[in-house]
Amino acid sequence: MIKDGDFIFLYGGKRAQFLIKYSKDKPYFECHLGKVEFPEGFDYGDVLYTNKNKPLYVLRPTTSDLVFRVKRLTTIMYPKDMGYVVLNLGIKSGDRVIEVGSGSGAMTIVLASLVGESGIVYSFERRKEFLENASHNVKRAGLSSRVKFMLRDVEKEGFGVFDADSAVIDVPEPWTLVGHVKKALKGGAPVFFLSPNIEQVQKTYKALNEHGFVRMKTVEILEREIRVSEGKTRPLERMISHTGYLTFAHKVNHEEG
Amino acid sequence: MIKDGDFIFLYGGKRAQFLIKYSKDKPYFECHLGKVEFPEGFDYGDVLYTNKNKPLYVLRPTTSDLVFRVKRLTTIMYPKDMGYVVLNLGIKSGDRVIEVGSGSGAMTIVLASLVGESGIVYSFERRKEFLENASHNVKRAGLSSRVKFMLRDVEKEGFGVFDADSAVIDVPEPWTLVGHVKKALKGGAPVFFLSPNIEQVQKTYKALNEHGFVRMKTVEILEREIRVSEGKTRPLERMISHTGYLTFAHKVNHEEG
Amino acid sequence: MIKDGDFIFLYGGKRAQFLIKYSKDKPYFECHLGKVEFPEGFDYGDVLYTNKNKPLYVLRPTTSDLVFRVKRLTTIMYPKDMGYVVLNLGIKSGDRVIEVGSGSGAMTIVLASLVGESGIVYSFERRKEFLENASHNVKRAGLSSRVKFMLRDVEKEGFGVFDADSAVIDVPEPWTLVGHVKKALKGGAPVFFLSPNIEQVQKTYKALNEHGFVRMKTVEILEREIRVSEGKTRPLERMISHTGYLTFAHKVNHEEG
Amino acid sequence: MIKDGDFIFLYGGKRAQFLIKYSKDKPYFECHLGKVEFPEGFDYGDVLYTNKNKPLYVLRPTTSDLVFRVKRLTTIMYPKDMGYVVLNLGIKSGDRVIEVGSGSGAMTIVLASLVGESGIVYSFERRKEFLENASHNVKRAGLSSRVKFMLRDVEKEGFGVFDADSAVIDVPEPWTLVGHVKKALKGGAPVFFLSPNIEQVQKTYKALNEHGFVRMKTVEILEREIRVSEGKTRPLERMISHTGYLTFAHKVNHEEG
Repeated sequence: MIKDGDFIFLYGGKRAQFLIKYSKDKPYFECHLGKVEFPEGFDYGDVLYTNKNKPLYVLRPTTSDLVFRVKRLTTIMYPKDMGYVVLNLGIKSGDRVIEVGSGSGAMTIVLASLVGESGIVYSFERRKEFLENASHNVKRAGLSSRVKFMLRDVEKEGFGVFDADSAVIDVPEPWTLVGHVKKALKGGAPVFFLSPNIEQVQKTYKALNEHGFVRMKTVEILEREIRVSEGKTRPLERMISHTGYLTFAHKVNHEEG
Repeated sequence: MIKDGDFIFLYGGKRAQFLIKYSKDKPYFECHLGKVEFPEGFDYGDVLYTNKNKPLYVLRPTTSDLVFRVKRLTTIMYPKDMGYVVLNLGIKSGDRVIEVGSGSGAMTIVLASLVGESGIVYSFERRKEFLENASHNVKRAGLSSRVKFMLRDVEKEGFGVFDADSAVIDVPEPWTLVGHVKKALKGGAPVFFLSPNIEQVQKTYKALNEHGFVRMKTVEILEREIRVSEGKTRPLERMISHTGYLTFAHKVNHEEG
Repeated sequence: MIKDGDFIFLYGGKRAQFLIKYSKDKPYFECHLGKVEFPEGFDYGDVLYTNKNKPLYVLRPTTSDLVFRVKRLTTIMYPKDMGYVVLNLGIKSGDRVIEVGSGSGAMTIVLASLVGESGIVYSFERRKEFLENASHNVKRAGLSSRVKFMLRDVEKEGFGVFDADSAVIDVPEPWTLVGHVKKALKGGAPVFFLSPNIEQVQKTYKALNEHGFVRMKTVEILEREIRVSEGKTRPLERMISHTGYLTFAHKVNHEEG
Repeated sequence: MIKDGDFIFLYGGKRAQFLIKYSKDKPYFECHLGKVEFPEGFDYGDVLYTNKNKPLYVLRPTTSDLVFRVKRLTTIMYPKDMGYVVLNLGIKSGDRVIEVGSGSGAMTIVLASLVGESGIVYSFERRKEFLENASHNVKRAGLSSRVKFMLRDVEKEGFGVFDADSAVIDVPEPWTLVGHVKKALKGGAPVFFLSPNIEQVQKTYKALNEHGFVRMKTVEILEREIRVSEGKTRPLERMISHTGYLTFAHKVNHEEG
């Protein structure tokens, strides 16, 4: 049974997809398909009908749904990229993860949901309104207890966090943070950089080499959707062809070699 | 400090990447770069030198490393696909997830690591030697307590599991299982199918439509690696261009609509 | 020096690209950048300035420019695909090429420009208004003498052409034409099919196998544009991800083997 | 009927594809499928059987076949790229085209076959053995009369050709040739650069800007093959993911603007 504050994904077709947070005080929803009342005791998997007699399916939202539909002040990382990052940083229950910048909090939500109750995400942001929006989005997702937001110019002040299991760096000049990342990470731990432009990647490699990082790897992840329909099966005509370059590296302690 | 039974990722360059499980009883490692002794109290981030004076970096393995290096009897799902699946199924701590077939246990490891101590993965396989290998790989990863392996022909016998949060279906004839999946899932919950061939996807859609599933979506995920090197930055000349089509759908209870 | 009837490509930036046919009777051009007068004796390579003082460069149009800017009643084949087709059909000076349907005449223009004065394109179309538009576009390109347009339902009546060097088939049900194609082609000659949907390809293969064609090959061609700009070099964010599947095959004379 | 000196493409399946030049003096062919005798008066489209009773189909070679099978001393441009280049340079019958370097002569063959009897390709190369090999390949293709090969270090000596319709530049340091290209091209005419690395493209843009070229465009062309087989239709598992960046620009006469 759906409870007050639960997320619901209402699905009425390709052009009618809505993530809402159910509130007892507002037991209805309206869109171009019409108005639907939420009956007492309705549940996931139910089919509701609008006053225009259109079906709206009550689905369980996925992590992709939650992150794609945060209130955005910034470009967000895409689920196609996030999933790859999570596996290539080895994010797991109990981890202590650094993130900078918080952006709209989309990646923060993914990280927080995966580090679990026993983990923590240190999320740094230097623009106050972004921090507040990200914090709002994380709170709405019920994950505030796992995230410590910090308003800080990391380039100047550093992280003030040590022995982190991994780091997610999504800022315009990531190369300025590589020294700080080195101080913050555990030995042998991985760091990830998202950069739209190849010059950012090139400068980041230079900084990574200077700080003795190893196992650098850069990839792009492309998602291509297929329309499957009898007699008309084919890839969609248009796609997102670039979000950013994903760069990974591991910290080592050369001095102690 | 690295303890008995910890995984270590030894990195000596693109062609020297090794995942090993450290054992006090065998405190050395040999490869084409030479032999290296593990000193007392060595740790992640250390640089060790082989008897041929080649450096080997002691790195923390990522989830990708763990799954790519399971003992394989089958093709495994690729991390590029796994990450996307995890976010689009909304896998989270505490989930009860169905998987069929177990294959080599690679996806089982990812699922088990994310559902945490409070979750469980029901992993079905009908070929005994595959089940045993998958079980061995999961045990090696220290995740046995979160996985219940079952030797079963699901098409004939069904899952015998109910109210699952999501399901991962990786079998040659997934359309034969759609009815069973419907019985096993919670209302509104998502299911994922991996299929190399487009005809498999087409047949699966037919079965999904017959069983009233909604929000079907099929994608391909492509990973393209970039070599970043001063004056010589470019995509690698060759890539994996197809692993499989990823299909998602959500269960709804039409009868109760 | 530009003569009456010459094509000019006027370039004023990414969003100001125009193909025009110069006419002495209308020696000016207007667009959102302003109005430009064509001076006496102006030539390719000149820079003209509009009355708003914006530069418009007088460039030589390429084949891509000519085909992209035909008057369209239909979807046209894309230059990325056309170029591949031309090389994989071995189109060359003097060839006799079959095309069906004429569509908007874009591919007709490419074929006609490559078969030269000594070659000929037989272009079949069953919808009169399409044929007329295609014919108009080919005439405008000055290539009418190389193209024989025919208003015909090829499925019912066949081509009535024999010993063709190659054939370009772009119709919704290409499999219905395979028998006719076999009769029309020279022994060992190639045929090309453009099909947006995979089911069309599957049915075409069936027909090709039945008629003894060999060396079947199907590809997709993807074009990805890169923005090259100091410090901001990266692929464009969006791209055309599908136009159609390109299928090739060669005719053989099994009976005579 | 096949004549002495004609090219034949023998096809015996995916792994048995051969381009040969028929010679009366050697009327047989041998491969892993066995030996085949060429009967008197055999023709394209015939099926021949080897002494192991395997069929070999006598097909007409396409332009792709001719260029893919030149004797190579260098990496050659791929047909997927060549076709795009031809349409985006507007190569047509009668054109005067510059090429540097000659490489293995693969692109030279394509250009020569398209400029026809009335056109000419000026092909520059500074390494003597490459020039000789390219010349040999072009001669074998019967196109020598359309190509003027020149052994020259263009960076130092320039082209000595003027009013060219287009230029194809495939050298490691294309930016050093941009000034020479400007002198050699007709006003408003296009030039093409093939560069494997992004840094080469960046430097070329700088030179193009300095010399007032306009309408710069850079793309990658990707070819993805699909296996079409009943119940097993899917993209091939591996593909060429990078050959080079294709850059285009047009010359303008800023001085005369």
